[in-house]
Amino acid sequence: MVDKKEILEAYCISNHIDYHCILLHGSQAIGFANQYSDYDYLIITRDKGKKIDTFLDNTHCKIQLEFLDLSSLEQLLMQYEDTLFDRISDLNLMAGRIHMSKMVVNRDDEVGKLMKHYRPFKQRSKLIEKFIYQAMNFYSDSKSSDFLLKKYSIDMMLRSLGVAYLISKDIYWLHLKWQHRFMEILLPVDMYEIYMRLLLENAYYRDEDIVKYSKDLIQLIQE
Amino acid sequence: MVDKKEILEAYCISNHIDYHCILLHGSQAIGFANQYSDYDYLIITRDKGKKIDTFLDNTHCKIQLEFLDLSSLEQLLMQYEDTLFDRISDLNLMAGRIHMSKMVVNRDDEVGKLMKHYRPFKQRSKLIEKFIYQAMNFYSDSKSSDFLLKKYSIDMMLRSLGVAYLISKDIYWLHLKWQHRFMEILLPVDMYEIYMRLLLENAYYRDEDIVKYSKDLIQLIQE
Repeated sequence: MVDKKEILEAYCISNHIDYHCILLHGSQAIGFANQYSDYDYLIITRDKGKKIDTFLDNTHCKIQLEFLDLSSLEQLLMQYEDTLFDRISDLNLMAGRIHMSKMVVNRDDEVGKLMKHYRPFKQRSKLIEKFIYQAMNFYSDSKSSDFLLKKYSIDMMLRSLGVAYLISKDIYWLHLKWQHRFMEILLPVDMYEIYMRLLLENAYYRDEDIVKYSKDLIQLIQE
Repeated sequence: MVDKKEILEAYCISNHIDYHCILLHGSQAIGFANQYSDYDYLIITRDKGKKIDTFLDNTHCKIQLEFLDLSSLEQLLMQYEDTLFDRISDLNLMAGRIHMSKMVVNRDDEVGKLMKHYRPFKQRSKLIEKFIYQAMNFYSDSKSSDFLLKKYSIDMMLRSLGVAYLISKDIYWLHLKWQHRFMEILLPVDMYEIYMRLLLENAYYRDEDIVKYSKDLIQLIQE
């Protein structure tokens, strides 16, 4: 059986792609993959060129390739924090995925240096403030007697606090899809229990319990 | 009691603001406001200038003002559909709010002409396709045995189908916060009942029921 690293190297040779490194990103890189997950690779090239490709390897895994040159990579990393200030829930951003990727093939130090330069968050406390403020706005919306609006708002409030918490822990990929998995690893067990139960049944909870939990979580974030 | 229109006109006079029109947008404009909702106004100015302002009127309503010149307004409207292709769930976009706003004061025909020009959606069927495709990706994620991931994915699948449905009905403001209210008005009663129950208890539903409902909804969209 040929491993994925060899397949990728062979792919680059046969397609005449000159590159700095190959990164595995997404769920496979952070260890949250399941049997349905694709393998997402980003190839940092020396020239601008081909943008994406998809194929199945010899074990029928779906391989997704993207190509990015070094200066476009730097652009993405540079703009990442500003982009986060503009987002509410669309947080599956390539720059975050890159920060939490794994180098599969590394030919020089260029990409490593860049990634190091943009870590940790430069505006961490402002970003945390932004997502806590966002959580408070959603909390205001949750005062409604409209049950579906209440549910949506509490959900988004919790999710926003989750984002603030993960930023405080230097988690860069903030995709809501995986928030609960990072929270499971990073939150104290009792706090995770409540987080999970609130996400599952939030609108059935008493307002006091939600407020108390939010305060506890904000305190943890600000520690 | 002085009404809001008079307050706004007086505000513009005393601040020397020359404008084409004043638009009421957001929940107050579409009739979904509750006692906690602000009044959001957009003033389309003749010059570039002041960006935002906030005050309480004589009845303690919070008035939020934004200012935009005509060419910036056109930019927003022109880019709106392309922006939607880039978004998953962050859909509370000013261009959509503008399309569903009410003219409170109108001094000429400029803004009306612009809004008409960018309606209805030029790429409606492609946008619908995008959000249905997105829904199908979330459906794939819902196959997971991770209960919170399942719940998130089904929720996002339903929401994505909701967006596709609302686009098919020429609803421009696609903010998820109000999706259920538009759906309540536009969906057949029996379809809304299921939509609501799936949003409330989605992860407890059988996969077959979710698939059947999704197919019914997609058929409605494509009618």
